Amino acid sequence: MLINKQESSTSLASLGEFGLITHLTKNFKCIQKTTIKAVGDDAAVLKTNQNTLVSTDLLIEGVHFDLSYMPLKHLGYKAVVVNLSDIYAMNGVATQITVSIAVSNRFSLEALEELYAGIHLACKTYHIDLIGGDTTSSTKGLLISITAIGEAKKEAITYRNGAKENDLLVVSGDLGAAYLGLQVLEREKQVFQANPNSQPDLEQYSYLVERQLKPEARKDIVNLLKELEVKPTAMIDISDGLSSEIIHLCKQSNVGCDLYEAKIPLDPQVISACEEFNIDSTMVALSGGEDYELLFTIAQKDFDNIKGNPHLTVIGHMTDKNTGIHLVTRANQKIKLTAQGWNALED
Amino acid sequence: MLINKQESSTSLASLGEFGLITHLTKNFKCIQKTTIKAVGDDAAVLKTNQNTLVSTDLLIEGVHFDLSYMPLKHLGYKAVVVNLSDIYAMNGVATQITVSIAVSNRFSLEALEELYAGIHLACKTYHIDLIGGDTTSSTKGLLISITAIGEAKKEAITYRNGAKENDLLVVSGDLGAAYLGLQVLEREKQVFQANPNSQPDLEQYSYLVERQLKPEARKDIVNLLKELEVKPTAMIDISDGLSSEIIHLCKQSNVGCDLYEAKIPLDPQVISACEEFNIDSTMVALSGGEDYELLFTIAQKDFDNIKGNPHLTVIGHMTDKNTGIHLVTRANQKIKLTAQGWNALED
Repeated sequence: MLINKQESSTSLASLGEFGLITHLTKNFKCIQKTTIKAVGDDAAVLKTNQNTLVSTDLLIEGVHFDLSYMPLKHLGYKAVVVNLSDIYAMNGVATQITVSIAVSNRFSLEALEELYAGIHLACKTYHIDLIGGDTTSSTKGLLISITAIGEAKKEAITYRNGAKENDLLVVSGDLGAAYLGLQVLEREKQVFQANPNSQPDLEQYSYLVERQLKPEARKDIVNLLKELEVKPTAMIDISDGLSSEIIHLCKQSNVGCDLYEAKIPLDPQVISACEEFNIDSTMVALSGGEDYELLFTIAQKDFDNIKGNPHLTVIGHMTDKNTGIHLVTRANQKIKLTAQGWNALED
Repeated sequence: MLINKQESSTSLASLGEFGLITHLTKNFKCIQKTTIKAVGDDAAVLKTNQNTLVSTDLLIEGVHFDLSYMPLKHLGYKAVVVNLSDIYAMNGVATQITVSIAVSNRFSLEALEELYAGIHLACKTYHIDLIGGDTTSSTKGLLISITAIGEAKKEAITYRNGAKENDLLVVSGDLGAAYLGLQVLEREKQVFQANPNSQPDLEQYSYLVERQLKPEARKDIVNLLKELEVKPTAMIDISDGLSSEIIHLCKQSNVGCDLYEAKIPLDPQVISACEEFNIDSTMVALSGGEDYELLFTIAQKDFDNIKGNPHLTVIGHMTDKNTGIHLVTRANQKIKLTAQGWNALED
């Protein structure tokens, strides 16, 4: 379970910084026409006739991930995916990434090869070019800083501020699974620490664990909306939890919202795990985070185009700003929504 | 001298992640026409008709900087500048940056305000827009990850691989001062630790210390070359030391090089500090690093255009690949150049 267990171990210092970058990136091929020059010069060179989208995220060991249950290959994959998700949330096409890492001397070359295998897989899956980065040592743990670059035609770009009163609020996929996956893994870690010979059986939590360890970004939804000829009026990806993201959309669009508890899409594993952990499934969906689903608003006239689509669920509608932002419960009570999304700066 | 000494101290957790970003970036104004949307959505939106340049760097406390003598405002400034330097090294115009930081709970809001004051000053000085970033907690110290974005016409871009046999090797400014500034500061730190009442007198090292704490990127040289109508055949910025950068140019351009020791430009403070520290000034210029000068090659026909310019010095010429890469000493001996530039991954 722990990364120190690998059989062979090559020290990073033996390669040097440039040797290491060359080694780790040697299998990466560039496929995007917009990539003129990737790794190997002072800067990468890109050329698009569209608008360029840029988003960046910093992931820190001990804050954003725990290597005792997060395999390095999955971590590399997830680190890329969470960045791409921001590009798709603009209704854009992700095209390139830069990846910077800092590693303490407890990491071997083989460990970084695993990490880059995951990054490579994400690049292949999402058709992204790795165009640059930085590799250095850290005084503690592993840090990953990724910048994702994408493109979109001006008229396709979907900001957070375009939602209008009476627009429908739509979410892709289902919510809460990633958070519950984390709870399952944390529990297994406790069990493992108490008894290192225990064999975890995660079968019944497979979907939850996969959503936590190997999330996907909803590139497919961006393509689906194009096919359906629906342009969202506003869009955001769900990284911090549904509640926090709805508040972002409402504040930036100057509207209110009624969110219907009964409409929130939940996987059966989420429902049964919530019973087992004795937590409220609505609270998990609202505040869990890390689902990387897309949350967007559409004009009412577009409802027929998305109606019945298995990937999309209408969960509410936008109201006048003065009405406020509310959850309408199954008992038809209105509760004010507060942002309980994950706060990376909390003590 | 230490950052913990500030009088007021506001905890970061009290603001939350979004409150903190809003607070730190509220004084930043966007001035670039290519910035369509900066901070505040899932991704920034840019639009240029030229090629886009992208470069990224990761700076880690205890590896790249020491806050016991690096004021946070200077650190913010330097962190931006070293990234812009990579854009200028492509013969481009720097236009935007993203800034991600991770901080441990020993940092107060006031400390981050100082850091962002330096970032702000660099943005104003170099006409750069801050367009995004990420702010999170770290388990140890301060980390800064910056991605610099720039633009250049296709025909202006200068890669590392265009140097030709007989081209002249040219460097801007002078070399070695930043390294010696670091030696001076390290020595003062020792003195301060032994006797906290000592008052350092850095007057005679003012240039060296400034080159270490507040380097500038040579945007002016990119403009100067344009005025002089000289397009370098290859270019790189000197971050790791002259020796290592020459080897990069030669390897990527498939040429050799004769570098003349007597031609290497040194400031008088560098020469006197080398005598005081009893180190060889040529070694300092070759391996010191962090000078952020531009190193480039030009065709011989362009020599008349740069001749006598006080900002530029011809220090050698490119040779056949098989001749190798050599330093020609004052005694007219040829010594093979090796990359002794700073290796961030060394133990």
